[in-house]
Amino acid sequence: MPANRQVIVRALPEGALTEAHFEMREAARPTPAEGEALIRTILMSIDAANRAWMQGATYRDAVKAGDVMPTYAIGEVLESRDASLARGDMVAVESGWAEFAAVKARRAWKLPHIRPLSNLLSVYGIAGKTAYHGLLGVGRAQAGDTVVVSAAAGSVGMYVGQIARALGCRAVGIAGGADKCAWVKGTLGFDACVDYRAGNLFKDLKAACPEGIDVYFDNVGGSILETALFQMNPKGRVVCCGAVSQYDSAAPAGPRNVPGMIVVKRLRMEGFIVMDFAADDAKAQADLKRWVAEGRIKVVDDIVDGLENAPAALIGLLAGKNRGKRMVRVAPDPD
Amino acid sequence: MPANRQVIVRALPEGALTEAHFEMREAARPTPAEGEALIRTILMSIDAANRAWMQGATYRDAVKAGDVMPTYAIGEVLESRDASLARGDMVAVESGWAEFAAVKARRAWKLPHIRPLSNLLSVYGIAGKTAYHGLLGVGRAQAGDTVVVSAAAGSVGMYVGQIARALGCRAVGIAGGADKCAWVKGTLGFDACVDYRAGNLFKDLKAACPEGIDVYFDNVGGSILETALFQMNPKGRVVCCGAVSQYDSAAPAGPRNVPGMIVVKRLRMEGFIVMDFAADDAKAQADLKRWVAEGRIKVVDDIVDGLENAPAALIGLLAGKNRGKRMVRVAPDPD
Repeated sequence: MPANRQVIVRALPEGALTEAHFEMREAARPTPAEGEALIRTILMSIDAANRAWMQGATYRDAVKAGDVMPTYAIGEVLESRDASLARGDMVAVESGWAEFAAVKARRAWKLPHIRPLSNLLSVYGIAGKTAYHGLLGVGRAQAGDTVVVSAAAGSVGMYVGQIARALGCRAVGIAGGADKCAWVKGTLGFDACVDYRAGNLFKDLKAACPEGIDVYFDNVGGSILETALFQMNPKGRVVCCGAVSQYDSAAPAGPRNVPGMIVVKRLRMEGFIVMDFAADDAKAQADLKRWVAEGRIKVVDDIVDGLENAPAALIGLLAGKNRGKRMVRVAPDPD
Repeated sequence: MPANRQVIVRALPEGALTEAHFEMREAARPTPAEGEALIRTILMSIDAANRAWMQGATYRDAVKAGDVMPTYAIGEVLESRDASLARGDMVAVESGWAEFAAVKARRAWKLPHIRPLSNLLSVYGIAGKTAYHGLLGVGRAQAGDTVVVSAAAGSVGMYVGQIARALGCRAVGIAGGADKCAWVKGTLGFDACVDYRAGNLFKDLKAACPEGIDVYFDNVGGSILETALFQMNPKGRVVCCGAVSQYDSAAPAGPRNVPGMIVVKRLRMEGFIVMDFAADDAKAQADLKRWVAEGRIKVVDDIVDGLENAPAALIGLLAGKNRGKRMVRVAPDPD
């Protein structure tokens, strides 16, 4: 029987995630049932949210020890037992860290022909849409605003700042390390990028935002969120997109100025998922394509090769090692 | 020269506010300059925000040691040196804990003839408007929603729950002590009131909100906010009105599930001041008057007599001793 290499969650982490929490296993290749399709995994999206799934039920069920690690992936239909899919279709699916998966055809979305395929996980995928809808739909960014984004070199943050610039805002990133900040400013073209590891976040952020912060796009939570809240302008908007500083911790700490700053400055803090703005997806896609074509948005995909490297890829992401959207290539694009 | 008794801030508190932070002083009665009016203080509003002003600059300048304690007050014009005011006018002013004050006429608002005068500080004043605009304008409460409000026996909270009921919502209060909760439920007519001092807030709140929380009107911050966030329904609204649990503390603690719950449940947390909704004031006033006339809203004013009792009145408020809008009567209504 043909084999199917998988990565299993051996034990749930209490504190920091390590490679010991995972193990490779060889299983039988699944056989699709009626209404299902057999998918060959090509690219797996590596996201901070994967770590959050290991902490408890979020918008999806919690991951349990013994599970194949779940993921959002792009794959090729090898065999279909449903009229909606045909061999050779390229689809987005909720799948697992595995070479093959049998998935319900109605939970697979056929993808448009866009190459490189990786862009469907980055600028034209959830990352790009999250940046766009978060900044416009939730943050209501307008020309002249100062927009700050944390995890600025990350999959979402890198587009938040570039979209902000395209809208005529001042774009200020927060990232860890001088090299990464230089990349955010030099390569991505942000107006400024503050290194939170340098130890003077409050002062450095203040210098980068002389007119205060109108929109803070928060990917991290914790003390960086706390610092940004102190520098928000009245009626500022905080786009709550993630809390990566908290996922890998057994004892998360809340920003001490919540709700104080919200009350005093009349701030709005709001969470969202991209599906909340599905009605605006076509406009998002058109704007992003135009900005990419005009050179206003640079696309950088961070691709790690090999299923066996998925644990290290996720652990590295949580430690901030990625530049742009991180993903694991399990098989080459058949195109 | 006629005297003017005043209460001075002797020293700013580091932790809990005590009577030792204040002292009575006798000063000369002020003489109004051109454009000013001499006001006899009748009622002084006692608010948790008074304590926040002692912590640093908020939407007004911070209070300093040696200042007359500032307050929002209702007073009678004794003498006017401005064409806009006449002797005998009843006005709302930003003033101080003092028998008399000279204030700029353009910073005094002539009040409509409503009696008892105390209602102009409660249901028809900032408290009632804060409850109304917060619940409708920020919280967007709708019939069928479960609305939870903390400091439910307080000046704003008591109206939040009663307005929620008038709108067809389930109204659940949070208050300290079994007696107070019985009053909130029995006298004010909330559907339920949970005693946070009983030590089972999470469980008790869950039992009172079997369908989760749609709108949480937060007057307290801290661990009560944290508990409520865990029980919010997706897309729930948190109206950030105050943080009384934090004002009287040298080391405020933030809710540990911020921004986690905001992200996962797509919540909106938002601060406001009543002036943000000035355009809807006439509707608010009309609705409140109708509900009072129909007996749907009960008005209870908590009046402490004597300027010298203002420090104790504020300290008691911070300890949750009030039932309804607390104020200090400095002089009788001349009407």
